[in-house]
This record gives sequence, C-alpha cells and structure tokens, in this order.
Amino acid sequence: MPVPHLTNTLNAPTFDLEKRILTAKPTIEHWFRKQWQLHTVPFYCSVDLRNSGFKLAPVDTNLFPGGFNNLNPTFIPLCIQAMMNAVEKICPDAHNVLLIPENHTRNIFYLQNIAMLQSIMQQAGMNIRIGSLLPGIDHPVSVPLPGGEPLLLEPVQRKGNKLFVQDFDPCAILLNNDLSSGVPEILQNLDQTIIPPLHAGWATRRKSWHFSAYDNVAQDFAELIDIDPWLINPYFTACGKVDFQEKEGLDCVAAAVDEILNQIREKYTQYGISEEPFVIVKADSGTYGMGIMSIKDGTEVYKLNRKQRNKMTTIKEGLVVKNVLVQEGVHTFENIHQAVAEPVIYMIDHHVVGGFYRVHTSRGVNENLNAPGMHFVPLAFDTTCMQTDPSAPPDAIPNRFYTYGVIARLALLASAIELERYIQTPLSTLAMAETR
Amino acid sequence: MPVPHLTNTLNAPTFDLEKRILTAKPTIEHWFRKQWQLHTVPFYCSVDLRNSGFKLAPVDTNLFPGGFNNLNPTFIPLCIQAMMNAVEKICPDAHNVLLIPENHTRNIFYLQNIAMLQSIMQQAGMNIRIGSLLPGIDHPVSVPLPGGEPLLLEPVQRKGNKLFVQDFDPCAILLNNDLSSGVPEILQNLDQTIIPPLHAGWATRRKSWHFSAYDNVAQDFAELIDIDPWLINPYFTACGKVDFQEKEGLDCVAAAVDEILNQIREKYTQYGISEEPFVIVKADSGTYGMGIMSIKDGTEVYKLNRKQRNKMTTIKEGLVVKNVLVQEGVHTFENIHQAVAEPVIYMIDHHVVGGFYRVHTSRGVNENLNAPGMHFVPLAFDTTCMQTDPSAPPDAIPNRFYTYGVIARLALLASAIELERYIQTPLSTLAMAETR
Repeated sequence: MPVPHLTNTLNAPTFDLEKRILTAKPTIEHWFRKQWQLHTVPFYCSVDLRNSGFKLAPVDTNLFPGGFNNLNPTFIPLCIQAMMNAVEKICPDAHNVLLIPENHTRNIFYLQNIAMLQSIMQQAGMNIRIGSLLPGIDHPVSVPLPGGEPLLLEPVQRKGNKLFVQDFDPCAILLNNDLSSGVPEILQNLDQTIIPPLHAGWATRRKSWHFSAYDNVAQDFAELIDIDPWLINPYFTACGKVDFQEKEGLDCVAAAVDEILNQIREKYTQYGISEEPFVIVKADSGTYGMGIMSIKDGTEVYKLNRKQRNKMTTIKEGLVVKNVLVQEGVHTFENIHQAVAEPVIYMIDHHVVGGFYRVHTSRGVNENLNAPGMHFVPLAFDTTCMQTDPSAPPDAIPNRFYTYGVIARLALLASAIELERYIQTPLSTLAMAETR
Repeated sequence: MPVPHLTNTLNAPTFDLEKRILTAKPTIEHWFRKQWQLHTVPFYCSVDLRNSGFKLAPVDTNLFPGGFNNLNPTFIPLCIQAMMNAVEKICPDAHNVLLIPENHTRNIFYLQNIAMLQSIMQQAGMNIRIGSLLPGIDHPVSVPLPGGEPLLLEPVQRKGNKLFVQDFDPCAILLNNDLSSGVPEILQNLDQTIIPPLHAGWATRRKSWHFSAYDNVAQDFAELIDIDPWLINPYFTACGKVDFQEKEGLDCVAAAVDEILNQIREKYTQYGISEEPFVIVKADSGTYGMGIMSIKDGTEVYKLNRKQRNKMTTIKEGLVVKNVLVQEGVHTFENIHQAVAEPVIYMIDHHVVGGFYRVHTSRGVNENLNAPGMHFVPLAFDTTCMQTDPSAPPDAIPNRFYTYGVIARLALLASAIELERYIQTPLSTLAMAETR
C-alpha cells in the first residue's frame, strides 16, 4: 500500500510522542489490562484520529462502527477471534443474534459493512439475521452487493417484549444503528439483551461527555508515560440552546471558539509550532459529518450565510442541532499523493482489529472527511496495530499504527467511562448537562 | 502452499464427519463457550491429529508446545491477540515474565520456537527474559539464530521463594519445559505464579488420564452433534509395571493390544473399512516420539529385538518407561507429493491460533512422525482454522482446518479437565491409577 507521509514541512516532526509510547509498551499494556478489569468495554467501536506530527488525538468515537468492509481482509481473523471474546463476555448464551442496521438501504458501502459484520459473527459461530426497521419493508428484501452474496433484510416483528424475524428467535439484538432520531418504540423495554445498550445511541450520547471522560483518561495516561496530556487531547467546550438558523446562542459559541483558539495559541507558542490554529464546531450528538464547520475566529460564527446556517442546523435524519461541541482542530499532516489521509481505528471488545485511511483529494488539512455518503476512498492498513518493530524508526508504519491503536484504545476506555456515567446520571440532569 | 490430499483410495472418504461439524458450527461454538466458562483452560497447547478420511482424532496433546516457529508469520497477530487474553485471565498483573525453556540448547529449531514465543509475548506487551536451567550456564549466553536476532539465555537464580535473572524481577514464570525428568528443586515451592502449573508437566501427567478425560469430552460432543464418538476418539487402555528390557508386564500389553485390535475390527466391519487395524504402544508420560511403536498383533510384543526393547525402555532424558498407553492407531491419509503429512494445531488460551503439517517422506501411514530432533519438514497452514467457506466442499482447506480446530479444542478441553483431576487426586492414588 502507498504509505501516508507526514508532510508538516514547517515543523519537522520529532516523533517524541511515538518514541515515548513505543518505549513504554509494557507499561502501557499492563495499564490497559488493569483498565479493562475496572471498566466494561463497549462491544465494538471505531475512532477517528488526527495526526499533526506534533499531536495525535481522537476527534470522534463511534459506538456503531460502519466501515468493517474497509478493513484489510487478511486480518479479518483478528475480528473473528475478538468477536468470540466479545460474545463470551457480554452474551455467552447467545446463539441467535438479530442485527439491526441503519436505514440507509441505498448506501451500498454501508450494506457491505453490514454483510462483513454478519460474516464476522457467523465465522465466530453465531446464527445471525438482519432485521430492518425501515417502515417500507414488510417482506424479506434481497439486496445484491458487488463482489459478494446478496444481503437479506427482513422485517422486524415484535411480540410482547421480544423482537424476531420470520422463523428466527434471537436471544440478543446487535445494534449497528446509532439511534440518531431517538430510540424507536419497537426497541423499548425488550427482554432480549441489546448490544450495545440503548444509551450508547445518539439519543443519549453527547460528544462533550465523551471528551470529558477522555480528559480524565488522557490525564492518567499522560502521567503514566510522563507526557503533556495536550499532545493527545484536543481542547473542547460545549454550548447549549444554540440555534444557528434563528441566530440564538451564538455568543456562547463565538466566545468558546475564541477561548479555545487562545488556549491553542499558548500551546503552539510553548512548542514553537507555526501552524495556524483552528477550531471545529459540531453538533454535540450525531455523526456523518453534517452539522460541522471549521473556524479560525469567533466572529465567523455571526457571519454564516444561509447555506452554512442550514448545514449547521440539521444533522442526520433531519434532527435539529441544539447543543454544539467546540473542539480544538488538529491538523491532518498525513498525505498520500497530495491527498489528505485520516486514520480510522477499529476495535471489537478491547482488541484493536484493524484500521484504514480515509483518503480525500479535494479537502484541506483542517476539514472534516467523514462526509455523508462515501466521499472518500478507504485505504486498508496493510499491517495490524499490534506488531511493533523496535529496529525501525518510530514513524515506520507498524510503529505508527501501534501508536494509533494505543490512542484509539484511550478513546475506547473513555467511552466505557462515558457509558457508565449515563447510567449513574438521571436523564433530566443529562439534558441540562451539556449547556454551558 | 501445496494442499495435502486425502489418499484413502480403498474407501473414498464421504466427509460425513466434516459435514456434520460444519453444519453444526453455531451449536459447537455455543457449546465451547459454555465449556470455557466451566473449565480453566491451559495457557497454551498443541495437539497432534490424525486424519484417516473416515476418522479424525487427537493422538497427542502437548501442554508445552515447541513449534511456534513453524506457524505462518501472517497469522502471528492471532497469537499476540490470544496471548493478551491469556495473560489477562491468568496473570493480569504480570509485567515481567521469565520464560524457562527445555535444556536443548543445540536444537536450533527449538530455540527458534523460544524466540518466537518471546516475540509474541513482547508484542503482547510483556517484558520477557529467558532463564535457562542448564547446569553449565553460569553467565548469559547469546545463541545466534538463522534469520533472526540472537537468543539470550540467562542463568536462573533463586533467592528465597523467588526466581530471577540478573536485574530482572519476574512476577510470573512461563514454562516451556515439560518437566519430563521431574520437577527440579529450583522450581519447587515458588511464590511466583507458574504457568502452566507444575502438575501440567510430565512428572505428573499421564496420557491415559488425558484420554480418559477426552473419552468424556468426545462422548458429550458426539451427543451434541449426533455422531458416533468413535469417529473422533481412538480406543485406548493402559498397563503399569511394564519393563520391556526385563520382559516384565508384557502379558498386559499383549492382551491390551489384541483387545483394542478386536474393538477396531468391529468398527471397521461396521463402517465397511478395509484398512488393516494397528495399535500404538507408547510411554504413558513424556513426549518426543521415543518409547513408541506401531503393532498389528499382540504377539509382536514378545518378539521385540534388543534395539526395539531399548527404544521402548527409555524416553527423553534417560527416563525409564514403566507405564504404557496402548492406543488405537489412526491411519494418516494426508499426503503431499507422496509424503505423509500430519496436522498439528496450536492454541493459546482457548483460541486456535494456527497450525502446520509435519511432512515426512520416508515414513509409512501408520508410523509416528514426532521423532527426536527435526526429522520432519514443517509446512505452515496458509489459512486460519476459523474461517469456513460454506460454498466450498467439506474437505476444502478452510473447512478442513476449521474441523481440525474443533477436534483440537476438544483435546484442549480434555486437558483442562485432566488438570482439574490431578488437583483433586492425591499423588499416591495417581501413582496407582494407570496400572491395570
């Protein structure tokens, strides 16, 4: 595979962070083992990273990963083995599993992800069928997929507190649907085990809660290997009651942007970084890259045109943005043939099972690549994220990928803590929590 | 890789067993999950299988596997991931591990195994050093290995109830030494965790106990998927107080041989198998293919020449055979270019992490390939033992290897039960148990 180069020409990266992580591998793995005993890890997870050469940080953590089809087929056995572990831990008695995907029946890439997930679970020894929540589906629909078997989507039925599809009685429900538009009635109060739990969906989750948990994790980890936590942790804050369309709550956003820009500038001065700081403003819940913008000055918030305001107001499934996350932007300095390449790391249970680059030729280093549909080219990692090469430089591919796997697991750990907090917190408190 | 062919020309294999196993995959994996909850699985394990086309069975289960170097490098990540699980379960607090190998410092193949094991544990995040029990070693010895880093063997020291090597304080001891000549004093009454436990060594283990546990496992499994347990289970019995040199106890052996030959003949008649039955007589403890012979009639036991009697009397490290296992021979009908090929399956924790064929051109289908030194050519499996291909025939390589992984895990489960029984049984009873 073409190897992404770090092209931060202004500040030649010193790879201090990578060196520190590689040297501390036994300490780090020992620490992770302890963490996995203390916390219940999400069933699966993908983490978007940004690598600026001087900083490596997670910017998005997805608890319903949608790109298993983008992983390197050579390492799918790692997914199967990890899946066997995940099933053992969470639902050892499960035999039949019903997989509930997103409702994007026309997105072939997404359906290939579902087909791959189904195959991984089958290879791990589960019977798995796919139950669609799409209102239009009242009989099984076979969707042809390029280069593979057709995917059978079946209408989900409910009897009492159990979901099923025709002649199939699942003991567990696996969600690959992030519940952006809330928890549908058909999924409420079920007797079956639901994996991940309903509160892992965007109806409950807040990115600000995730990054608040990540703050703690990054702090502990930074102490463990004696680094500045900023090197792995983007500044952030959150604003509530924001309406870009009606221009409400913008003062909070503008102030937050300027505050974070100031914090970044201080750090850039401290480290002699001459890049221009930027901030990402995005919906505090939800995914798919809608409701997201890159800003270099607080006043820009007041100057959005109608199209930009529209984009910031609605996210997936027409939901209205009310809470926004204002997050330090981390430059992307990984390039392949002039195209920006952003790493995405996949985990099942607490195992890093692979990753890929999102490669995009027409976007800048400070823009978001996870756009709706498939406006990027996936480039599967051609080594795993576990085998380091002590004889190679710290930015050699196996070493760089190990480092990615470490930072991704920190975000995974943050998700575990984040999910624990939702359980401990009454929902009414939660609704208030993200307001400033 | 060249694919071994099943060349049982007299009885074209019907692959009924493979079909049954492949169809029942979800039932089997569900059953295994339950078993791993009920039993503590050995840390690692390798299982020698024999495939006669009509029968597939384990013939030897090694709790100190010595061929990690023979596995396909592509799938070493599976070993690393499984190792992380094994460490989490058995010694989550371990940071520094001392690996104690066999005393074969001149066997380069074995030392390559140790180097690979060290690398797997390092990649799993452990600090690992190699402590030699060789009396001659009083300072660190660096052994050059072809195509790799040299291996550093260090003299083991003991202080109170702790083992260590220079400037290295291990919290766990990993044995890759099968304790054939008993448990050396330096390993007795240690405060450190010893993995696998000392009673997994040949000083305690009896093959007859293993196959007795396997009897139960095979019975349960056969009921689960509705097959004749004989299809996966060789007949066996044991004789005590045997001395081939002094011609003592031979009546027991001869009678056992004839009894088992009769049992086999009945089964061969039942299944219309026209092969000639044979029986393997081997030491009830120990490994490395010494003290083993193939017999087709009980009277042969009385007609051994001096060389044969010698061979049957001493095994590894000059130990004298007193207890023998008499076991149904399973023909080897896997061939590569006229060479006999015998599968060996590797497991870490309860995960099948790979396998290889022992390929030997100069041996017959009913002889034992695990000879001292390295009189075979290893041929690594080029797929894992987990990904089945439902669209391919039952004997297609991925499907055949999955079946091998299932039977190997049955032997692993038998080992788990076997080890539990040693703990529950006073040693004096144990010493009597294998006598007939």
